[in-house]
Amino acid sequence: MSAEIHRRANNFRWNGVDVLPYKEDQRALFKGVTRQVLFRDPEQESELRYFEVAPGGFSTLERHHHTHSVLILRGRGRCLVGREVRQLDTNDLVAVPPMTWHQFRATEREPLGFLCMVNSTRDRPQLPSAEDLAALEADATVAAFLRGEAGR
Amino acid sequence: MSAEIHRRANNFRWNGVDVLPYKEDQRALFKGVTRQVLFRDPEQESELRYFEVAPGGFSTLERHHHTHSVLILRGRGRCLVGREVRQLDTNDLVAVPPMTWHQFRATEREPLGFLCMVNSTRDRPQLPSAEDLAALEADATVAAFLRGEAGR
Repeated sequence: MSAEIHRRANNFRWNGVDVLPYKEDQRALFKGVTRQVLFRDPEQESELRYFEVAPGGFSTLERHHHTHSVLILRGRGRCLVGREVRQLDTNDLVAVPPMTWHQFRATEREPLGFLCMVNSTRDRPQLPSAEDLAALEADATVAAFLRGEAGR
Repeated sequence: MSAEIHRRANNFRWNGVDVLPYKEDQRALFKGVTRQVLFRDPEQESELRYFEVAPGGFSTLERHHHTHSVLILRGRGRCLVGREVRQLDTNDLVAVPPMTWHQFRATEREPLGFLCMVNSTRDRPQLPSAEDLAALEADATVAAFLRGEAGR
């Protein structure tokens, strides 16, 4: 049986798993994010990926029809889901509903690493227009989050 | 937006997530295992569950057509996949191929907790017949694992 039945972890890197750029889409704004595909298998209808956001970094603000099922595997941080800003701790769960703006941010002190389960067949993310951003920034809490201010 | 976008973790229990019996099947042999369904959503084609095996406990020895994608979330232990016995550490990955006998065992010292991604639509597990067990036990390493001996 192939060695792939068991892949060892070593400080949030895995044997036989490449550390990839977060995005291929050059238009997407993000900072300090890597991607590792832990499980992608024709027998499975979903994929499990690990994203790591460096201290001070953030994922792309985006939305799409497919949903995200997230578990924080490493560290602490914050997320925006819709108009909700939440403080996240290790092992917390985040569910991103369809067509809901979302972003993950690490603190300045440590990386934020999270698992994300998605359907293998899924739509491409949409980026916010200037109007979408203005609508989000009309909420003071959301605006502070998007500026990277720690907030409560 | 509902509070379900964010569920806090507290020592491997989650807000709003029930701690369930591992199995409904009364015939299945196991010891000291609980189940928590972290994500089960009609929008998602897979589920993410958390299983916790108490010190000295073990999951059912079984096989099925569907595959398991496993990440060790807590502690250390061992697994059998096919004829392979592997030592597992936190964050290690285990892929269980179709129709492959598998079992997870905690050590005597600490719980073993793992995430398991599966297709939402899947076949029921099969339990080993006496002949299946005899075939497995013909391998000395597998036999020692099934007896709960620590092995190397």
